[in-house]
Parts: sequence; structure tokens; C-alpha cells
Amino acid sequence: MGLLDYFRSSHSKGSASVAKERLQILVAHDRRERGCPSYLPQLQREILAVIRKYVDVDMSAVSVNYEQEDSHEVLELNIVLPDTAQNRL
Amino acid sequence: MGLLDYFRSSHSKGSASVAKERLQILVAHDRRERGCPSYLPQLQREILAVIRKYVDVDMSAVSVNYEQEDSHEVLELNIVLPDTAQNRL
Repeated sequence: MGLLDYFRSSHSKGSASVAKERLQILVAHDRRERGCPSYLPQLQREILAVIRKYVDVDMSAVSVNYEQEDSHEVLELNIVLPDTAQNRL
Repeated sequence: MGLLDYFRSSHSKGSASVAKERLQILVAHDRRERGCPSYLPQLQREILAVIRKYVDVDMSAVSVNYEQEDSHEVLELNIVLPDTAQNRL
């Protein structure tokens, strides 16, 4: 199953109960060199800064998961957008 | 199955054949208002600009999938990083 299929299936299963507008961001990094420091935590801050250009994001509405194992790491950001989310463009 | 589980399982299945360092980014947006324009295409450019601060990314190594249906849209970026990818920090 492809990643888009995963999103599609999880969306259709949950769509009836989803009332809030939300944004989900995933960054998965397969690394060859295990010793070098991860830049995902910094990347996370910069991605959030970019997103805040487009929508009002209260930091209390952002949940972050970060997992690292061997040479694979995944950063997951779940953001519940405010009801009055306005495009700032 | 949670999203992190999905990444974990797809990683373990494919880890033997993965030689390249790679980065995968997903942005899923559940929108309440269907009429308003999407900002994901602009977001895509800005996220790529942020990533290029950390690693050398040749634009030919970036593949993009974008799907939109009803009030749900998903942007997927797959980036094969160069063998000599260096952290620029």
C-alpha cells in the first residue's frame, strides 16, 4: 500500500468524526551515516514557521512525535487549525 | 495502525534494498471550506527551500505527488539525497 493510499484510507475511515480543520506533516529520513547529528528538530521549527505564514497556528494546537531507530527517523506534526483559519496570502 | 507504525513497517520491509539516503515529506490537509484556494503548492516550495539549508538537494532528485479530493489534499515529496550529503550547519 502506498503512502497516499494510507492517507486516503485513514481519511475515509475517520471523515465522519472529523470536524476540525487539520494539517498533518511527516518527515521521514533514511540516513546512511548513523553518527551524524539529526537536523529534524531544527527542520521542525522552520517548517512550523513556514506554515504560520499561511495559517494561524497556536502552538498549543501542535502535537509532535519524533521517533528514531537505527538509521531511520520520523518526525510527525499534527496541527489542529482554528475554526477561523484564514489564508494570509 | 498509526502513521508511525506505517513508516516503521514500510521501512523494515524495504531496508535491505535501500542504499540511498532519502527524505520523504508528507503534508495532509483536511479542509472545512472547499472553495478556498490551496496553499500546499506554495508550502511545497518553501519547505524545499528550508530543506536545502540542511542538505544539498538537486531538484532532479525530488519527486512530487499531489492529490486532492473533496476537502482532503495530500502533498508528498520524495527526495533522494546525494551520497555526499553534508549537514551545512
